[in-house]
Amino acid sequence: VAGASVAVLGGGSWATALVKILNDNGTPVQWFIRDAEIVKSIQTVGRNPRYLSSVEFDPSFNALHATPKDALVASDTVIIAVPAAFLQSSIEALPVDAWKNKNVVSAVKGMVPGKNMILGDFFNQVLNVPFESFGVISGPCHAEEVAMEKLSYLTLASQNPELADTLCKLLGTRYIKTTPSDDIYGTEYAAVMKNIYAIASGICQGLGYGDNFQAVLVSNAIEEMEKFVKAVHPISRDIKDSAYLGDLLVTAYSKFSRNRTFGMMVGKGYGVKTSQLEMNMVAEGYYASACVHEVNKTYHVPMPIAEAVYNILYNRYAPVMEIRLLSDKLS
Amino acid sequence: VAGASVAVLGGGSWATALVKILNDNGTPVQWFIRDAEIVKSIQTVGRNPRYLSSVEFDPSFNALHATPKDALVASDTVIIAVPAAFLQSSIEALPVDAWKNKNVVSAVKGMVPGKNMILGDFFNQVLNVPFESFGVISGPCHAEEVAMEKLSYLTLASQNPELADTLCKLLGTRYIKTTPSDDIYGTEYAAVMKNIYAIASGICQGLGYGDNFQAVLVSNAIEEMEKFVKAVHPISRDIKDSAYLGDLLVTAYSKFSRNRTFGMMVGKGYGVKTSQLEMNMVAEGYYASACVHEVNKTYHVPMPIAEAVYNILYNRYAPVMEIRLLSDKLS
Repeated sequence: VAGASVAVLGGGSWATALVKILNDNGTPVQWFIRDAEIVKSIQTVGRNPRYLSSVEFDPSFNALHATPKDALVASDTVIIAVPAAFLQSSIEALPVDAWKNKNVVSAVKGMVPGKNMILGDFFNQVLNVPFESFGVISGPCHAEEVAMEKLSYLTLASQNPELADTLCKLLGTRYIKTTPSDDIYGTEYAAVMKNIYAIASGICQGLGYGDNFQAVLVSNAIEEMEKFVKAVHPISRDIKDSAYLGDLLVTAYSKFSRNRTFGMMVGKGYGVKTSQLEMNMVAEGYYASACVHEVNKTYHVPMPIAEAVYNILYNRYAPVMEIRLLSDKLS
Repeated sequence: VAGASVAVLGGGSWATALVKILNDNGTPVQWFIRDAEIVKSIQTVGRNPRYLSSVEFDPSFNALHATPKDALVASDTVIIAVPAAFLQSSIEALPVDAWKNKNVVSAVKGMVPGKNMILGDFFNQVLNVPFESFGVISGPCHAEEVAMEKLSYLTLASQNPELADTLCKLLGTRYIKTTPSDDIYGTEYAAVMKNIYAIASGICQGLGYGDNFQAVLVSNAIEEMEKFVKAVHPISRDIKDSAYLGDLLVTAYSKFSRNRTFGMMVGKGYGVKTSQLEMNMVAEGYYASACVHEVNKTYHVPMPIAEAVYNILYNRYAPVMEIRLLSDKLS
């Protein structure tokens, strides 16, 4: 998009996919990547060696930066695409002023650890970013399929309709269709909660429950999600839209979801810690489970599936018994 | 259930699964199966040799019948579990009187060919069965998983709450949980329409669309289904309940769905006739597509996905172009 100056923070697969989309749309990126080896590889051979390595970048098209500060200085729109767990450490060196007059756009599918806040609230309350300058990128969108240019859909949310429209133009390409939305809370929470339900789905698969049960689980999960986001932010929304239901489906039915795999190990009887060590990473839904549990202390929404996952992960309840009790609450 | 006298019409996998459930619940069945070899096998070795052959029946527990008339005479509740295409030929020899004072329960996931009626309307209008004596068995429930006694959920619908409750008791076992409903139109249409959407899902997979797109397709499909059943029968319902959304999910995401396989062949470029011949059977969604298209001439609900499937199957539109046009209507 002509005249846009966009920064992307992050060097993982989702960040890499977003830079590809922006580039394919003619937009160069001020790109912050912490890992110096990845920076060097993109600058020399035009590839991110660790994530989506099949994607080719024109080495001279983007400006790579070793600090977020350098990326922010040259941009008016900043897309945050680091894992939620690293958000605060990634930006702690930046003064609050660095965010002034920037559009801040979250592509983070998680909540701020320790604060139990979605990014919209975090940037607003902690870093003084007004809601009219805040946006969310969401949708059922595996980065791997973006790399293959398989047709995908993104929803771009902002309480500022102009920003939502600008983001739609920035990210719409021949293989990405975009839809604007005004629902930053619903899209952020859906992106967080789907990982909890993907863990639930994995646990049930690990315990031997079949496809019939999974269909009931996912149907109940989307109803549970609807009730929760309605309690947190009661605006008009159709939870069956692809930013909510679609995002849940692509995660809960994915064979490659880390959250689902983590849940499956727990369901098969490996301990929570063992499962995390074995996977050599922490599934985002593990943190999301605790965050949503804390937030729900304010709202008291009945969420039997999310609570079962919480009880299994944090209270060490036996999965076999916890899911059997859960099964009586589903219909 | 004590005192119940139940007939089941049909010897396919769903009929066989339903008899297993009824038997496991202590209810003997007046069982009509057209195929004499299957009857003989169940009477001698207690197994249906063609469908769910792992399921064992006590040969003396059920009464097998070679005609539907014999099965009906001895029962007050008749469960119809023949394929929709064979419904009329299965029961044409029966006088209208045979249905008098019977509860008639449809486990057929299709519409009456040539009449474009769901079974509720057919039995009411053609065979004078009052709606208070009519019920529907629905739910996300592969028969194969019932055979394995994997926990599954059924929704039992009737405009007569007492009949819905009776059916819940008849079919609830340790591996089947049941929920009553008053929505015979919604549950019947959902069971029919899911097969159209499973064909759509298969066509798109055959064309090379990925998981991101499938999630958007299914999200749009459930919204389309909601609009259609609301137009046909506007009562209060949550389309995300497992009888609607769950049934769509278990079919659209199943690797074993005939409808999905049929769609995939069409998407890969085999002709419609070739795909049917190759599969040696006709996918139910093929008929459902024409029926729903006809019914929608009364209601004019915008249904881009169902229309795309109809255009591909009946108007010989090229799948690649039809789905590309469809993709612009999704979000």
